[in-house]
Amino acid sequence: MRAAVIAVGSELLSTDRLDTNSLRVAALLERYGVELVGKSVAGDDERAVATEIGRRLADAELVVVSGGLGPTADDVTREAVAAALGRPLVEDPEVWRAIERRFASFGRVPTANNRRQAEIIAGARVLPNPRGTAPGQRLELDGGRALILLPGVPVELEGLLAEQVEPWLAARAGGAALEYAVLKTAMRPESEVDRELEPAYAEFGREAITVLAAPGEVRVRLSARGPEPERRARLEAMRARVRALLGRAVFAEQGEATLEGVVGALLAGRGLTVATAESCTGGLLAERLTRVPGSSGWFPGGVVAYANESKVRDLGVPEALLAAHGAVSEPVARALAQGARQRFATSLGVGITGIAGPDGGSPEKPVGTVHVALAGPDERTIHRPYRLPGDRERVRWFAAQAALEMIRRRLLFRTGAEEEA
Amino acid sequence: MRAAVIAVGSELLSTDRLDTNSLRVAALLERYGVELVGKSVAGDDERAVATEIGRRLADAELVVVSGGLGPTADDVTREAVAAALGRPLVEDPEVWRAIERRFASFGRVPTANNRRQAEIIAGARVLPNPRGTAPGQRLELDGGRALILLPGVPVELEGLLAEQVEPWLAARAGGAALEYAVLKTAMRPESEVDRELEPAYAEFGREAITVLAAPGEVRVRLSARGPEPERRARLEAMRARVRALLGRAVFAEQGEATLEGVVGALLAGRGLTVATAESCTGGLLAERLTRVPGSSGWFPGGVVAYANESKVRDLGVPEALLAAHGAVSEPVARALAQGARQRFATSLGVGITGIAGPDGGSPEKPVGTVHVALAGPDERTIHRPYRLPGDRERVRWFAAQAALEMIRRRLLFRTGAEEEA
Repeated sequence: MRAAVIAVGSELLSTDRLDTNSLRVAALLERYGVELVGKSVAGDDERAVATEIGRRLADAELVVVSGGLGPTADDVTREAVAAALGRPLVEDPEVWRAIERRFASFGRVPTANNRRQAEIIAGARVLPNPRGTAPGQRLELDGGRALILLPGVPVELEGLLAEQVEPWLAARAGGAALEYAVLKTAMRPESEVDRELEPAYAEFGREAITVLAAPGEVRVRLSARGPEPERRARLEAMRARVRALLGRAVFAEQGEATLEGVVGALLAGRGLTVATAESCTGGLLAERLTRVPGSSGWFPGGVVAYANESKVRDLGVPEALLAAHGAVSEPVARALAQGARQRFATSLGVGITGIAGPDGGSPEKPVGTVHVALAGPDERTIHRPYRLPGDRERVRWFAAQAALEMIRRRLLFRTGAEEEA
Repeated sequence: MRAAVIAVGSELLSTDRLDTNSLRVAALLERYGVELVGKSVAGDDERAVATEIGRRLADAELVVVSGGLGPTADDVTREAVAAALGRPLVEDPEVWRAIERRFASFGRVPTANNRRQAEIIAGARVLPNPRGTAPGQRLELDGGRALILLPGVPVELEGLLAEQVEPWLAARAGGAALEYAVLKTAMRPESEVDRELEPAYAEFGREAITVLAAPGEVRVRLSARGPEPERRARLEAMRARVRALLGRAVFAEQGEATLEGVVGALLAGRGLTVATAESCTGGLLAERLTRVPGSSGWFPGGVVAYANESKVRDLGVPEALLAAHGAVSEPVARALAQGARQRFATSLGVGITGIAGPDGGSPEKPVGTVHVALAGPDERTIHRPYRLPGDRERVRWFAAQAALEMIRRRLLFRTGAEEEA
């Protein structure tokens, strides 16, 4: 099946708004093996919307339209569809009663405008929308084609996709859905992950495995198609293979998992605590740790020691160390980690010092030079030097990411810096 | 003039990528009074792209196509345009020499594939692309219509828009450009800003003034159209009027300015310094301050005092105060601010304590309760209580924003908390 998506709304043609609803539709289509062949945006103009729908229906078996179902004069999708198909609009008394009930539940009465939202294209099936006023509509046309109208409000659209469109699509596609799994790694270059996955590409096919890179994080997305239980079994086989290939680098197998969340769960599970001493990251590591709800259970605090005086006074870094090696150095990173651990009386202490740029670099210590150290209860402090790419923001993000990954590996594998690669 | 934008690329039909180039094109079109009537995305399919171009040219005087000009087999825009217009592709020897020179500058030799990038649609004008390999192309067609092809790489597209498309459009539109100005406020509700702007709406017209809200920040965008010098004069009159209406709330008059950047510049200009003591924001304020290049000149550091022990030990908050009022209270915020100032020997100290959620709220102190205090060199500590809306992330962002705005007002107007509204 081939599909096209049309978003209706003049605001989607402005300089600062994009149609994001099409991403939700695209995800659903992909899951059921429907090929998305085109997307378009039309303004609140009946003729333009009608033209767009007509030409998309000439080329695709499924056309999904979002938006333009509101009560105001510039909501023209219903009229445009009626014009494109040459069918009348008819008021559906049941939809009108539902609208009246919805308004009554807020202690209000619908206006005359709202009556338009009860108008249904002749022959359409109403898709009830419990989250809003305008229902969706589905038209099955000749030649096995279908046209689906959905409200443009994202939460309403998503609800209708899940409750109304997906079951219909599943029945039509014979349940041949696509299923996904995600594995995430931190601080691994995309190219290396890609190379390590080669045996999996050979075994499962290149198209079943997608590598997606974000700063300091590489996600591997696996997909399997076809009927159950084979689909699930294939996905699990892929997951096991990729896990084996990437090994310790995999920090999560859920798309929403964050590295700080994984670190927090590990600390909480083991009854351990961590404190931070940050220079170049300026509080970003502490900020990321405290994004995790419940972080007060394992993170008592940290020091942002931006100035050298603070490194000495607040974290006990010996002045001689600063004088001999400079603030951005392995010995200072180690002293910061130990200082944080001692000051906050935690199980672990992290120290970060580096040059985030744009200024402050030198030939020996260019922008991106960062030292991360982790002090632990066994009095062993591990350290790793980095040359991080990118601008100030990126260097800081990578540095915090490196520190989190160092904590994770220490907790899970008790590895030192030398084994971190 | 009516325009349509087409983005070419199968990846733009995937579940996680959107065509953002069209926003840049839309901004340029808006500036010259060109109406954008539709946008579409087509995959890397010659027939689909040709169809899309053909039908858009039937409906708009200007069609801008981005993407599909690369060297690989799936870059089909050139062939699609040739097919849509029934014109041949011809290799441009000068473009090919430019490609060879570009590769030579990297010590490389172009491949046979790159030769395709020297192919020009017969009759097209070459738009040189100093940032990449593929040039843009512009075709002037009958009926005053025009077709412009641009590379899909954003930096290349933006360069060509500025250097090649804008001058052409300006000449064609008779220079009747739209010009913008932006004023930014922090911690003001959008609805209040909107209400305060009513005299400006009445004077300059509702459509000339747009209010855009982001968390803790409201931007007011002014636009003026028409020939110079009237346009610039009108813009300056609007700017002066809006500045007068919003008064002290305006923290910047440049779109890219950040509140932390403004605060940093004020501190640097006055030779003052600031230190932070953060509880619920967990380092976000320090992180934001240190996003500003050169922040080491006015920010020696801060403490993330997440646990009460740290508030007592590291910032000198009296235990009795915590016991009597709880950690989330005005007295503790004041003590934190003073403690930060003393520890780091700075001109100013900021203290933030609050309940970011999702847990920890109570009927008296619900999630979103935040106290911000600012200690200064005159021994006067100002304080402001907040009830901030939203989830954990949003409460933290607002709290840091509130602290920055408190610093800004203190530095500029010497106002206390009571005058901050």
